[in-house]
Amino acid sequence: MAADATDLSTEALARRRFLKRGSAGAVATAAAALQLPARAAENVAAAGAEAANLPPNVPEWTKSLGEPTASPYGMPSRFEKTAIRSLYPGLKEPMSAYSTSPLQELDGIITPNGLHYERHHAGVPQIDPALHRLMVHGLTRRSLIFTMDELRQFPSESHIYFMECSGNPSFLPPWGKTAAEVAGLVSGAQWTGVPLRAVLAHIGVKPGAKWVIAEGADGAGMTRSIPIEKCMDDVLLAYSQNGERLRPEQGYPLRLFVPGFEGNMSIKWLRRLEVADQPVYSREETAKYTDLMADGRSRKFSFVMECKSLITSPSGTHRLTRQGRHEMRGIAWSGHGKIKAVDVSVDGGNTWTPAKLDGPVLNKALTSFRAPFEWRGQELMLMSRAVDETGYVQPLLSELLKERGSVSFYHNNSVQPWRVAANGEVTNGRA
Amino acid sequence: MAADATDLSTEALARRRFLKRGSAGAVATAAAALQLPARAAENVAAAGAEAANLPPNVPEWTKSLGEPTASPYGMPSRFEKTAIRSLYPGLKEPMSAYSTSPLQELDGIITPNGLHYERHHAGVPQIDPALHRLMVHGLTRRSLIFTMDELRQFPSESHIYFMECSGNPSFLPPWGKTAAEVAGLVSGAQWTGVPLRAVLAHIGVKPGAKWVIAEGADGAGMTRSIPIEKCMDDVLLAYSQNGERLRPEQGYPLRLFVPGFEGNMSIKWLRRLEVADQPVYSREETAKYTDLMADGRSRKFSFVMECKSLITSPSGTHRLTRQGRHEMRGIAWSGHGKIKAVDVSVDGGNTWTPAKLDGPVLNKALTSFRAPFEWRGQELMLMSRAVDETGYVQPLLSELLKERGSVSFYHNNSVQPWRVAANGEVTNGRA
Repeated sequence: MAADATDLSTEALARRRFLKRGSAGAVATAAAALQLPARAAENVAAAGAEAANLPPNVPEWTKSLGEPTASPYGMPSRFEKTAIRSLYPGLKEPMSAYSTSPLQELDGIITPNGLHYERHHAGVPQIDPALHRLMVHGLTRRSLIFTMDELRQFPSESHIYFMECSGNPSFLPPWGKTAAEVAGLVSGAQWTGVPLRAVLAHIGVKPGAKWVIAEGADGAGMTRSIPIEKCMDDVLLAYSQNGERLRPEQGYPLRLFVPGFEGNMSIKWLRRLEVADQPVYSREETAKYTDLMADGRSRKFSFVMECKSLITSPSGTHRLTRQGRHEMRGIAWSGHGKIKAVDVSVDGGNTWTPAKLDGPVLNKALTSFRAPFEWRGQELMLMSRAVDETGYVQPLLSELLKERGSVSFYHNNSVQPWRVAANGEVTNGRA
Repeated sequence: MAADATDLSTEALARRRFLKRGSAGAVATAAAALQLPARAAENVAAAGAEAANLPPNVPEWTKSLGEPTASPYGMPSRFEKTAIRSLYPGLKEPMSAYSTSPLQELDGIITPNGLHYERHHAGVPQIDPALHRLMVHGLTRRSLIFTMDELRQFPSESHIYFMECSGNPSFLPPWGKTAAEVAGLVSGAQWTGVPLRAVLAHIGVKPGAKWVIAEGADGAGMTRSIPIEKCMDDVLLAYSQNGERLRPEQGYPLRLFVPGFEGNMSIKWLRRLEVADQPVYSREETAKYTDLMADGRSRKFSFVMECKSLITSPSGTHRLTRQGRHEMRGIAWSGHGKIKAVDVSVDGGNTWTPAKLDGPVLNKALTSFRAPFEWRGQELMLMSRAVDETGYVQPLLSELLKERGSVSFYHNNSVQPWRVAANGEVTNGRA
């Protein structure tokens, strides 16, 4: 049977079935079942035999050949225009800048590589992997320089981990409109690489070694000091991300990956590791990435990204278009390990109910949660609050400010509220 | 300190340290530690003070700004030329064709969306999601037509699953050179969507319902019959893949996802589900996707993709360049559930040792495995053999042919051997 005839008869048959049963009635049933607004049901009645939500014709794509198989590297649909990275609001200089993952468009615990958040200090270098080297030296029994091929010969491990910028968001207003603007400097991926402990065992670490200084090969030469216990634990020399080689903006061909710690410590374009007995007190751990406290002292070496959650749907700029049952969805994560639970509220934190954790719950990885809620056209304040396996509970902003003082900048893991207005519009509950 | 001065002094300091210790000696130590071929050590001696594996200059990317932050949708490095999809070997017509994931280039259990394998019968339609509809009807209490927005209002679930074509590979020679050519019609991703059981519960299924007929909206109108028990189990109406909306070539905006079953049953560009008391005996489950047996009968409705594994590194066209300890890496999967174990052999299956399962072991998902092996310049035959949680053991090809006969075409889940030659070249052990 020719494709056209089959398609037309299927569509026509479907229409006839609807007409037989009384299309207005059948589609009105559909509308009612999903509790569509009254307007849709009226359209159905007005349209008569032509059900309001049936497309008018057999679509073009059903009657023709599509595009060829085997695009060498596939891209998203041209109809997906809003699932893109954006410069963090207010930034204009693109070399020392960050870009956000469009969390309000995403699902699950894996962020596609093209949408992983970025934070750069001198733009994105395009490194030739054949020329890239990693030097490992210092308080070591020997000093070695590795090529990428040599590193890939070490035992490899793959782990699903989150990564988060320590300024996600900062404590400064404005708070942003969308989930991306509010907290889009977090992403999840499966990272593959060499456990750093395997390389350190290979070269031999001398007594007195307490830190590893990691330095990047980009124009900014980003440098951080990592405690050696962490390096002997789960730090990776990562070369793959979600199966393929790292993206340039995530450090191609090699980055340090420090699970659960501030994103800036996962030094990109890694070229040097120096084993030392002291931290190097780089700019990035003194002038930056420290927290000024109320008494004038700075909290430094605040490594761990604490337990946190974010409702991604519905979130700022979304709109509820019907009354009835909805599902809120979001992500939770903790630098201390696994998420134990997520509670949600629709009344600004007066009452809480447990959300369902959906999919695998993994150590230091994004964890999906979802929870049903009812909307009857009233104003709501949606919130989520995560608890990790240590028992730590994600704090409210007021609790966090009380503890840290109001001049603190980084590590804002407070509960994020989303306001639902009577007309269904969703906005940032802080603004 | 200016970036240049810092960089030069760091490089120079590193060189001076090497010179102090006797660079030839230090780098020769590196060479020996990794058991590099003798040639490298000789080069070192010949080069004198200039260590053979140090790049000649401070790289350009260390001395300059890179590319701007916030490319809206990032792409792989321009240096990554071989991690691409390719038409299955021998195919020329790109509309009814398949493309392979470059498994020999990939790590872990997540295949990046741009490299997920494809199988199309009329190319890739570019569907406007606003116009796309899903009709659900048949032996149901009511018939409904859904928009994408309506489907996204149902409860959602996210699961990491493999997908495999039932002809991966077929039993026909030639067997291919690379892992991609041999068995590249398998990929892994986290899929998000509505559990079909939720939609069926919503519309109500009548007594006597035994099958669900699923039909696609592309020019080929791909149709398969799915047993209703499976539909009530873990079948998804999927709209997201690794976090973002489906790719056009994976069914944008909506596909059926039937975990663990033949890939063709996960109907792309899904437009219709008919609940029925019989299968529809479409072309795709009679003329195709059935297995001719030795006695002349056809084995049809062979749904489950059985337990299987594949060594992806080293694999065909790779080359071992040094003697000593190596790590073989690969993936295993089973349509019946979780992988329980993977054993590996270096002597063509005479002796087997257990490999290590690396990372999460999930139901009906790819599972990474790795195992060390020694190469001393002799010929090896590398093999991997998976066992799933039901106790099923991946068979050798000879065992499979004995069971199925030699005219069988699909469901070749036999052990794949890779030959390592004395010069280190790796080739398909079947060819």
